[in-house]
Amino acid sequence: MTVHVNETHDPSLESWVAGANVAGTDFPIQNLPFGVFKTAGAEAERVGVAIGDQIVDVLASRDAGAFEPAGDEAATAAQACAGPTLNPLMALTPSHWSALRRALQAALVDGSELRDKVVLVPMADAEMCLPVDIGDYTDFYCSIYHATNVGKLFRPDNPLMPNYKHIPIGYHGRASSVVLSGTPVKRPKGQVKPPTEDAPSFVPSRLLDYELEVGFFAGTGNELGESVPLDESDARIFGFCLVNDWSARDVQGWEYQPLGPFLAKSFITSIAPWVVTNEALAPFRIPAFERAEGDPQPLPHLDSEQNRKLGGVDMQLEVHLLTPKMREAGEQPFKLSTGNFKHMYWTAGQMMTHHSSNGCNLRPGDLMASGTVSGPTPESRGCLLEITRRGAEPVDLPNGEQRKFLQDGDELMLSGWCEKEGAKRIGLGLCTGVVVPAE
Amino acid sequence: MTVHVNETHDPSLESWVAGANVAGTDFPIQNLPFGVFKTAGAEAERVGVAIGDQIVDVLASRDAGAFEPAGDEAATAAQACAGPTLNPLMALTPSHWSALRRALQAALVDGSELRDKVVLVPMADAEMCLPVDIGDYTDFYCSIYHATNVGKLFRPDNPLMPNYKHIPIGYHGRASSVVLSGTPVKRPKGQVKPPTEDAPSFVPSRLLDYELEVGFFAGTGNELGESVPLDESDARIFGFCLVNDWSARDVQGWEYQPLGPFLAKSFITSIAPWVVTNEALAPFRIPAFERAEGDPQPLPHLDSEQNRKLGGVDMQLEVHLLTPKMREAGEQPFKLSTGNFKHMYWTAGQMMTHHSSNGCNLRPGDLMASGTVSGPTPESRGCLLEITRRGAEPVDLPNGEQRKFLQDGDELMLSGWCEKEGAKRIGLGLCTGVVVPAE
Repeated sequence: MTVHVNETHDPSLESWVAGANVAGTDFPIQNLPFGVFKTAGAEAERVGVAIGDQIVDVLASRDAGAFEPAGDEAATAAQACAGPTLNPLMALTPSHWSALRRALQAALVDGSELRDKVVLVPMADAEMCLPVDIGDYTDFYCSIYHATNVGKLFRPDNPLMPNYKHIPIGYHGRASSVVLSGTPVKRPKGQVKPPTEDAPSFVPSRLLDYELEVGFFAGTGNELGESVPLDESDARIFGFCLVNDWSARDVQGWEYQPLGPFLAKSFITSIAPWVVTNEALAPFRIPAFERAEGDPQPLPHLDSEQNRKLGGVDMQLEVHLLTPKMREAGEQPFKLSTGNFKHMYWTAGQMMTHHSSNGCNLRPGDLMASGTVSGPTPESRGCLLEITRRGAEPVDLPNGEQRKFLQDGDELMLSGWCEKEGAKRIGLGLCTGVVVPAE
Repeated sequence: MTVHVNETHDPSLESWVAGANVAGTDFPIQNLPFGVFKTAGAEAERVGVAIGDQIVDVLASRDAGAFEPAGDEAATAAQACAGPTLNPLMALTPSHWSALRRALQAALVDGSELRDKVVLVPMADAEMCLPVDIGDYTDFYCSIYHATNVGKLFRPDNPLMPNYKHIPIGYHGRASSVVLSGTPVKRPKGQVKPPTEDAPSFVPSRLLDYELEVGFFAGTGNELGESVPLDESDARIFGFCLVNDWSARDVQGWEYQPLGPFLAKSFITSIAPWVVTNEALAPFRIPAFERAEGDPQPLPHLDSEQNRKLGGVDMQLEVHLLTPKMREAGEQPFKLSTGNFKHMYWTAGQMMTHHSSNGCNLRPGDLMASGTVSGPTPESRGCLLEITRRGAEPVDLPNGEQRKFLQDGDELMLSGWCEKEGAKRIGLGLCTGVVVPAE
């Protein structure tokens, strides 16, 4: 991996942007995630970088000379921020991304002489936009805990398919309905056939669920017919974001055989507004998931020393629920579950290499998501299907309410962050959505 | 449906373009399919319309005044042909598409005073391009004969899933790897695990197959959270094209559970260069598939009198194979199978309405494909998996060769056309591809 841990992750760095130094902020100077925003009165959507409670207007700062000392690659990367999506930036190289990151740090660091040339917009004055034109969206299924928990509901004695430990299982998702965090989630209608009924009916989904996932964007792509070697895959990932893969379980149960999930997923998928770069996550890289004794090793094209040593990411995740009653009473959101991206059976690099192993071309801005991030404990189940065992064990909320699945008005909030001794905590922002009734 | 059968399908119409009047041409003046082309020396890709052996350069003809008498809608539609894809034209309305069609006919008809203003490019001098920027690609599974034939290979007593007669089964495909007819088809590598082996291996696919499909493009789309009523769906289809959904059956068999086909399909999908408009197909509309006695009727949102009366399309299809030996010997391609789009259990309109029934947004240029078009007879099986019963009954070729699945150097050619008494035959062009070895 081309990472510059010491250079851009010095935990002692502070910024002259006060909000970046507040304990617990998602966006210290060590993070610098990319997004797209617009401001009232200004039509144009443009690329921004989060710093504390502010957004760096990248192109305006470039125009003001904030990155001038940083050289050609940073200039090219800043120029790629001129449009309404991150795609042109993603289509450059890790070296470009890194150069712009260093230029941003140099301009934002406490005492920087470039301070006056940085154009900031308060987050409070900005409206975030979908940051990427997503060509294709692929959803994986890479938590063995999730696959086992879900499999047990259907096949108690044989929860995992024989292919699971050999293939990062995934399927093509729907790109058109990937939306920005905060977009209302209309309860979908769909065909369902509960076991108690003889014939299917077309009704609003009764088993609406969320799925806590971590997404990652292809930066550098590959041509059709070529594939990405495992030791190159990681460097081609531009960055990570939180994903909520909303799911209609009743629709899924009736439709999914033999070709997999379709309308149970494609009504909406939410992503957080900020893409945390792969480079920013470098200090939190850890070994890939340790396979249990007796588990097969991955085939050679999906295995490497580098992947075993640094393929994982220690990223903590949380899911909170706020019901309409809780909102009215002014109560705090309830923590439904916690998780960690390190529990994935396959690494992001393995997913990308597998995806391209047949010659399928990945394009800059293509989104891949991990699948539900569930861990080994009951507290770390990443969707209500698992948490409530398909409704058999409802969740008791502090105010006396119960939930088997999501009800209209419920708000889901995904959050994620990385922290460890000797590094600065960096966060992924929030991915939220409120369920609104079917029409 | 907004169709103008009499106005634009008068079979007696001839064109001053001689090639359009040749018996058996795919592209008489009653067809006028859209594509994108470029010419040597000219960088720009631009929209063209096939007429005989010529291509109308739409924008150049507009600039020369060829469509001037036709009014505002035709002018707007012609202006939408200025870019390198059909998407802007597709994003207009059926009324716009129809106006441009009428303007083209008026300029191309024998005796037209506009003749001198039409800019033609011989097909022989043009290179065709992928005509559409495909946002999302969805593949259905709507031939009950195909589903039954394939199902029997795995479950002889119970070939069809319980949902089949209630849902137009489909799955999300990969948009990035949809390519133009003629693009070489590199044999994909993939994980396979034949029953005779204990562990999977990563090898070039040994069971490479084609699938004869008919695709259709969304024109007018729908917003996220809305759905397309069945009686509006058909009018939102811009047009149809031939699709070859190349498939690696050994990869598919090992990977597809539980989330469906993924890398077995995403290595490449070929489409023909010409998009035949829905309006051009109007004379060939027929009643939807007649369900067998005892089959359930579709749920109300998937059923309408209009769909029952005119939902089908009588479109004949053929598949030819040319092996390297046949090519060297100067032999003609061998007809592997024939088919007809009328044998689909679900209509294109039902597929579109189902797709959007959960609120999933369809965008102009989104591609939907029918799934393998197989009919009730042995001659009308649309893929080698069915034809050879997974290799158990190889095809005997006239030169003594046999085929269970595709071999390197094999060329597949899909063709399709509509014809009937009292109408002019119109064709869909060719969708071809040559298998090249894995690296």
